[in-house]
Amino acid sequence: MGIKIGILGYGNLGKGVECAIKHNSDMELAAIFTRRAPESIKPKTTNIPVININEAKNWIDKIDVMILCGGSATDLPEQTPKFAEMFNVIDSFDTHAKIPEHFNNVDKAAKYGNKTAIISVGWDPGLFSLNRMYANAILPNGKDYTFWGKGVSQGHSDAIRRIKGVKDAKQYTIPIDAALEKVRRGENPDLTTREKHTRECFVVLDEGADPKEVEKEIKTMPNYFADYDTTVHFISEDELIKNHNKIPHGGFVLRSGKTGWSNENSHIIEYSLKLDSNPEFTSSVLAAYARAAYRLNKEGSFGCKTVFDIAPAYLSAKSGEELRAQML
Amino acid sequence: MGIKIGILGYGNLGKGVECAIKHNSDMELAAIFTRRAPESIKPKTTNIPVININEAKNWIDKIDVMILCGGSATDLPEQTPKFAEMFNVIDSFDTHAKIPEHFNNVDKAAKYGNKTAIISVGWDPGLFSLNRMYANAILPNGKDYTFWGKGVSQGHSDAIRRIKGVKDAKQYTIPIDAALEKVRRGENPDLTTREKHTRECFVVLDEGADPKEVEKEIKTMPNYFADYDTTVHFISEDELIKNHNKIPHGGFVLRSGKTGWSNENSHIIEYSLKLDSNPEFTSSVLAAYARAAYRLNKEGSFGCKTVFDIAPAYLSAKSGEELRAQML
Repeated sequence: MGIKIGILGYGNLGKGVECAIKHNSDMELAAIFTRRAPESIKPKTTNIPVININEAKNWIDKIDVMILCGGSATDLPEQTPKFAEMFNVIDSFDTHAKIPEHFNNVDKAAKYGNKTAIISVGWDPGLFSLNRMYANAILPNGKDYTFWGKGVSQGHSDAIRRIKGVKDAKQYTIPIDAALEKVRRGENPDLTTREKHTRECFVVLDEGADPKEVEKEIKTMPNYFADYDTTVHFISEDELIKNHNKIPHGGFVLRSGKTGWSNENSHIIEYSLKLDSNPEFTSSVLAAYARAAYRLNKEGSFGCKTVFDIAPAYLSAKSGEELRAQML
Repeated sequence: MGIKIGILGYGNLGKGVECAIKHNSDMELAAIFTRRAPESIKPKTTNIPVININEAKNWIDKIDVMILCGGSATDLPEQTPKFAEMFNVIDSFDTHAKIPEHFNNVDKAAKYGNKTAIISVGWDPGLFSLNRMYANAILPNGKDYTFWGKGVSQGHSDAIRRIKGVKDAKQYTIPIDAALEKVRRGENPDLTTREKHTRECFVVLDEGADPKEVEKEIKTMPNYFADYDTTVHFISEDELIKNHNKIPHGGFVLRSGKTGWSNENSHIIEYSLKLDSNPEFTSSVLAAYARAAYRLNKEGSFGCKTVFDIAPAYLSAKSGEELRAQML
């Protein structure tokens, strides 16, 4: 019997978790939980129960880890504490500024229920955070850089879609090579927002909408686009569907640091991801941490944790002996 | 009072640890231990005791963590178990095939002494191992690649120096860009030894030695050079001292993996290091894990561990709260 996983929320992330379970032979999907009408959900896995979220409490003994696949804006702040009382849970909460508050809420709930919760799992926050932390601990005297892309930013795509006259849109965040190269050469540049990334937008207009107006509104939008060099392409709906139907992403975390008695030696640590599917990769990280939550709970390690608190070996299906012999 | 560190062995690695302690404000150097005549050692730190290794047992109460800076061939197999009975210890044991045996010996000793030992710390084994392991856990369906360099291989430089007619030599291991690019493009190539790295040698001859003979002997040396495209440059001793006096190194760990219901999406995880000084960077990793050993021992977590067993937060001088607020 594998680790029994429940998926809460069957959007892109939930579907990705379903695929990730298929790739991990020590896990099995137990049920999908949804706020929608269960009969409207068609899982890829055959014969898998789809259950209304309100029935989850009846599944406490049948689920080892519940992976919460909702959004950070409104779903997770409410769902993670609520479900952490009943289940071991994993979430991908990514509102950086609210992580401490979310952590405290989930910690209280998980300790109350003797459950193990791991929050903010994914690649940023998640693997990028891990790499920032390891690199900082190793090179205390240094400077951090994070670049995102090339990839689709859902938040920025949504912001364009909310503009009057826009039918649909995809926005790509693109790291600027020249800036990346400066960092790699150890120049420790101070980079403005504009110097780090450009933004490229593919926009489908409503009939009769004025492209000049829409372009201006995008390019001057505060926070989202005003501080960037932004390119806007108007394309047909067919083109958008045909050429921009994937959700790639990725990015780079670098730390440039000095060692030696007089800081005479420089070092660059670089971590990068190039992802065809942002949600499927994120889901794969969630699945690995679900294994960790399951094991930690068995050991009696209750409460809320983040990627910083989890010894790497807990993520792997291999034993300590196998890891030392094969991977060290 | 900081974490009191002892350094055992004052070669390149020991000197690197001395520098690393200077960069970590929560650590202090307590003493240097040596097999040489203590008065022959001139530490950079002022007023630091230099002690004969046989006196180490008198320092049990004055050292929180002993960092063992000897070699893997003969020093560490003997020293780490011996000192793990008396001290929390860190070593950089890097004979991959003998790690399981070394682990068992050190584990027994550390448990006997209620001490915490972390072995095989550095970048390979060490940070590279961590990245292999994380990437494997996240993308179970994939392929691993490790490239080393550009950097000085001490073992290969030594092998050249043992050839008759060679006065001195430095050997650089160089990853082949075309192979690296194939991996980055997700082509999952099967690469031979020759396709992954080239070797470049800078050799100073003894007077009267025959360069043709030496070159042939290098290029045909089994295991070390025969399977590689090797370039040999003969230079003067002055040039070697002037242009090849550093010990740079680095490398790349990549995992290429598939996700999706039918493996339809590809992902590349890449980790790389570019190091001006191999020993100083390795020492910086040792220092961070010394912090972890100190804390784990305080928590009563005894025995031998590797980087796989250490939750990342233990490496950082920051608290869990600070890490969540600043780095997640």
